[in-house]
Amino acid sequence: MEQTLRVCIYGATGYTASELIRILVEHPYVRITDLVSSSTAGRKVSEVLPHLTPKLGDLVLSKEPEEDFDLAFLCLPHEVSLETVPELLSKGKKVVDLSGAYRIRNPKAYEEFYGFVHRYEDVLETAVYGLPEFFRESIKGAQLVANPGCYPTATLLALYPLIKEKVEFDSVIVHALSGVSGAGRGLRQQFHYPEMEENFFAYSVEKHRHTPEMEDVVKRLSGREMRIRFTPVVVPASRGMLSTLYVRTNIKDIEDLYRETYSGEPFITISRTPPMTKWVLGTNNCILYPTYDARSSTAIILSALDNLGKGASSQAVQNMNLMFGLEETLSLPTVPKFP
Amino acid sequence: MEQTLRVCIYGATGYTASELIRILVEHPYVRITDLVSSSTAGRKVSEVLPHLTPKLGDLVLSKEPEEDFDLAFLCLPHEVSLETVPELLSKGKKVVDLSGAYRIRNPKAYEEFYGFVHRYEDVLETAVYGLPEFFRESIKGAQLVANPGCYPTATLLALYPLIKEKVEFDSVIVHALSGVSGAGRGLRQQFHYPEMEENFFAYSVEKHRHTPEMEDVVKRLSGREMRIRFTPVVVPASRGMLSTLYVRTNIKDIEDLYRETYSGEPFITISRTPPMTKWVLGTNNCILYPTYDARSSTAIILSALDNLGKGASSQAVQNMNLMFGLEETLSLPTVPKFP
Amino acid sequence: MEQTLRVCIYGATGYTASELIRILVEHPYVRITDLVSSSTAGRKVSEVLPHLTPKLGDLVLSKEPEEDFDLAFLCLPHEVSLETVPELLSKGKKVVDLSGAYRIRNPKAYEEFYGFVHRYEDVLETAVYGLPEFFRESIKGAQLVANPGCYPTATLLALYPLIKEKVEFDSVIVHALSGVSGAGRGLRQQFHYPEMEENFFAYSVEKHRHTPEMEDVVKRLSGREMRIRFTPVVVPASRGMLSTLYVRTNIKDIEDLYRETYSGEPFITISRTPPMTKWVLGTNNCILYPTYDARSSTAIILSALDNLGKGASSQAVQNMNLMFGLEETLSLPTVPKFP
Amino acid sequence: MEQTLRVCIYGATGYTASELIRILVEHPYVRITDLVSSSTAGRKVSEVLPHLTPKLGDLVLSKEPEEDFDLAFLCLPHEVSLETVPELLSKGKKVVDLSGAYRIRNPKAYEEFYGFVHRYEDVLETAVYGLPEFFRESIKGAQLVANPGCYPTATLLALYPLIKEKVEFDSVIVHALSGVSGAGRGLRQQFHYPEMEENFFAYSVEKHRHTPEMEDVVKRLSGREMRIRFTPVVVPASRGMLSTLYVRTNIKDIEDLYRETYSGEPFITISRTPPMTKWVLGTNNCILYPTYDARSSTAIILSALDNLGKGASSQAVQNMNLMFGLEETLSLPTVPKFP
Repeated sequence: MEQTLRVCIYGATGYTASELIRILVEHPYVRITDLVSSSTAGRKVSEVLPHLTPKLGDLVLSKEPEEDFDLAFLCLPHEVSLETVPELLSKGKKVVDLSGAYRIRNPKAYEEFYGFVHRYEDVLETAVYGLPEFFRESIKGAQLVANPGCYPTATLLALYPLIKEKVEFDSVIVHALSGVSGAGRGLRQQFHYPEMEENFFAYSVEKHRHTPEMEDVVKRLSGREMRIRFTPVVVPASRGMLSTLYVRTNIKDIEDLYRETYSGEPFITISRTPPMTKWVLGTNNCILYPTYDARSSTAIILSALDNLGKGASSQAVQNMNLMFGLEETLSLPTVPKFP
Repeated sequence: MEQTLRVCIYGATGYTASELIRILVEHPYVRITDLVSSSTAGRKVSEVLPHLTPKLGDLVLSKEPEEDFDLAFLCLPHEVSLETVPELLSKGKKVVDLSGAYRIRNPKAYEEFYGFVHRYEDVLETAVYGLPEFFRESIKGAQLVANPGCYPTATLLALYPLIKEKVEFDSVIVHALSGVSGAGRGLRQQFHYPEMEENFFAYSVEKHRHTPEMEDVVKRLSGREMRIRFTPVVVPASRGMLSTLYVRTNIKDIEDLYRETYSGEPFITISRTPPMTKWVLGTNNCILYPTYDARSSTAIILSALDNLGKGASSQAVQNMNLMFGLEETLSLPTVPKFP
Repeated sequence: MEQTLRVCIYGATGYTASELIRILVEHPYVRITDLVSSSTAGRKVSEVLPHLTPKLGDLVLSKEPEEDFDLAFLCLPHEVSLETVPELLSKGKKVVDLSGAYRIRNPKAYEEFYGFVHRYEDVLETAVYGLPEFFRESIKGAQLVANPGCYPTATLLALYPLIKEKVEFDSVIVHALSGVSGAGRGLRQQFHYPEMEENFFAYSVEKHRHTPEMEDVVKRLSGREMRIRFTPVVVPASRGMLSTLYVRTNIKDIEDLYRETYSGEPFITISRTPPMTKWVLGTNNCILYPTYDARSSTAIILSALDNLGKGASSQAVQNMNLMFGLEETLSLPTVPKFP
Repeated sequence: MEQTLRVCIYGATGYTASELIRILVEHPYVRITDLVSSSTAGRKVSEVLPHLTPKLGDLVLSKEPEEDFDLAFLCLPHEVSLETVPELLSKGKKVVDLSGAYRIRNPKAYEEFYGFVHRYEDVLETAVYGLPEFFRESIKGAQLVANPGCYPTATLLALYPLIKEKVEFDSVIVHALSGVSGAGRGLRQQFHYPEMEENFFAYSVEKHRHTPEMEDVVKRLSGREMRIRFTPVVVPASRGMLSTLYVRTNIKDIEDLYRETYSGEPFITISRTPPMTKWVLGTNNCILYPTYDARSSTAIILSALDNLGKGASSQAVQNMNLMFGLEETLSLPTVPKFP
């Protein structure tokens, strides 16, 4: 790699790309070479993403990368990423894929949960799941990092200490709240401002594609098949995620366990009070609040992060830092805008 | 008319229709005969407007009215209303048109501001502008009422006492804020929840179709041509409107003037403090706060209403009450949901 | 009772009182005799509750009721209600108490969860829990109705069909979201607008006073002691409540069970899609969505209502209607403001 | 100065301090020595400002600075700053004062608009008004910088090109919208979340302390006394400011004038469309949209900034950079969080 890391962003007009750009323009060793967007190619950044005007206004979005690069971030739809990843790998590029196309090791899950047949099993096998707290060493050597989903990140970070400690449990309920940006930039009636304001509701109660992702990683970590009951809820906020786990088990000193497990982790905080999502907005932090309810023999773990931060784009940059031997925390925000 | 007033609503799936339905189901003398919607005909209310399920869930939307009716409320696009109004009038129906198609007496304005040629000048001449505080007697006898726009209602109610009192002035600046529902139910990127939340901005600064509407009514009331400088701003709220008028003039006892002018008006309140839009949400009230700034020789009048209430649907019901000889205030809410 | 029901509201400046007033001013048989408020007595409504100005602006709040009345609604702090209830009963008044002071039959619970000793066990025994769907007949004859808490209303309505059908289960997890008005009108840093906007968080995770209330009613209904694991979360909305229940059990045809149980209930709707809180704002409706997840052997029931509507004030009016032999649904809103 | 600039923050628990900290922890040459807070001294940052926990959680707030420093930022109430500034200056410290205590050169204005007698006229005379775009050279040499108010910053930047160009005009109307954080962290009923949500309203219509501040700077820049008619409005957003100026005048090519005036200014953008406040959140940018309405002979200039960014804390850091000979743009954010 050159002194400067050349980075290309595919799917540059969505929210995860927007957040990537915000972080990368402050990164001391990164230069963004191209913003690729099939739908808005040829237009200036100032027209398409006017909030970037003061910094990048005159840049023109491109249909294909016009300059060579070291790393591509893919902020593409799942089925587009599916095809783009092998192409880029075959050209020797490193890739951080923010879609779900290479997150689950079992290709069959894609038919049921994503609606397409996954024809790149060999590539799937090489993908490293980009949760540094679990797979740091593999990420360092990866050519392809599958950047985790927001719900899985919040949930797996909350569950991991129990798994690591081999705490006995057989049932996990995950009730998770998300701000609206988690659903992306595409327009939908229910996300029209007048209808989403002062409104909150569950969705995909029967089936959500983050369920097999979570179960797959749990299996990697514990060797066990486990069924996770997952209910997502959307609340009237732009960003933020709060996942609550209910785990029936017996455990003592749960706070100590969590503190030990994540001791030294720069982006994980164990809180003594239930975390507010406002504390993590725009940052790469995840705040955990573990507690045990003896009345119902239930460990309850709250997990807060920014769905576009640790849940997507800043985690992607953390992965980039690891892949290129940079200091892991470089350029990653830890202080939120408040209020 | 029968004992019961039979009412048909065209364009039944938008916000003004939704608010009309909320008011009309509580009206003691009204029966809704048909909810007409070209785009969703044949579907049940519970599918299209699920918030109405407990009351009207099994009703089916229709392509054309299936039952006879006495009055039609048109919640249609301007260019559709343009055609539907003469049709209905020719069948002897009474009409309250919530679009802008029959509000401005000068047909030429439609080419410039609405983008269509107005071919129904004769109908236009018979339309009564549905602001009861100014045109109550004409409304009582009208077959067609053109229900005013939200900005014109807020602004004209605020300006009227100065006109009536023949206060000298030559310049009016109107700076008006609106909740997002004023832009309707159609999806647009800027109104996607994550982008509209924590966001506010002016739009149509150069030219807005409510400007000629306001100027036309001012001319009817005062006999004078007057140029209104109008700037609309959208703020992150679902409903509510706050119009501020700056009128360069000399005047004393402005509060008294406003109190006298609107004495006895059931829906106009003169406030001693700047009104909050929250005080009028869901109601047919307009709250005015007139004050005079001697330093700058400027009368400043604040006017608050609900853009879907007095600015649209409840005012339409007020017009209906007048057209059919009912008590004017019947079924019209005056107490807002708070908070 | 007279032809007109004379109603006095104690604690008239909070949110539950405000919502009561909104409903009662439209009630055909009710006259509000006094708005009692120790803190603002002597002041006009227009100063204290300016949103009521157009309807009740000149009314003066009083320290004690100045006129005789048939029914008192108590919107007082728990420990004030505790004392006021016996006083009013001894004068022969009927009372609907919106505080928690008479909801739990076990007086000991008050020490642990409310921080006071309950010295009126005899009164407590006569109190009827004001959930009409369960205790309609008792409410009709009650002198004192303890109006349920918002979380218990949402949760118990969701749980009741399983209890009634004697479905076997031993564990209930309740994860419930509430708008901020549920915490009342008192100022707190976390509810300051800039901090609450774009923020959501759990609170009282260890212990909440609605837990013993729910468990007490479950015991009355089922004869069984049951431990409910309850986690409340506050989300950035003014009103609305969404309670999700996780019940480990085996059950078939859960939707049918819910439809049968609540068949004929005017305010309960069984929905085929997860309910949005926006569908119930300002109404007395509760919308239930029951589903069964065979993978995890868990019945999941979603329950949406307005915490100030069916969760407080409109339910209080429903109770009033029953207590005085009026039509149960009189004046109770079922169509929400939308959007 | 040392290699590292030692910075002390007084009044560390409010919003402007919170934003200062967010910026300064990323500044390569700054070290925060003390967070001074009279009300929370002795407590840990994690208790008082929990959103800072991951970065500064163990830091203890102090009653007085415990370490020597080069620069103090004062985020204190006006009347406290009034006294603290001369103290610090006499000890040879440099000061950026974010209060209003040293912004207006005429001490008499303080009695009328701030409610206190200003006894430090000599200090007042040495204060440099911290708007770099106007007073850059003076700021470089200043010991005391009076950091401008948010409304004056937005308004003066919008007005300056007309003054500089000596455009003739005699009347300026400023209608400005602000997010709620502009009112500070102190609790007030109207800013309680359930009341502020879905609410907007004007305040201080008769008299606001930013009016004399604006008029004073206009006089410095133009040599003319000018009366500004200023109306502030609060809207339901946490941050953001949109100021609209109406200037009656004749002018051509207004956009060119603005582009020329601010050519080379790193934080001023001239936009071809009305700016959205979301484009500036968390940044030091000000976006101007100048237009001319020939119909009403009125120049209309829209000005958007973040009231806590360019309107307060990031502008304070810009001033700091200038005062200490650092690159002016160092560490100042120009890309907003989006969405």
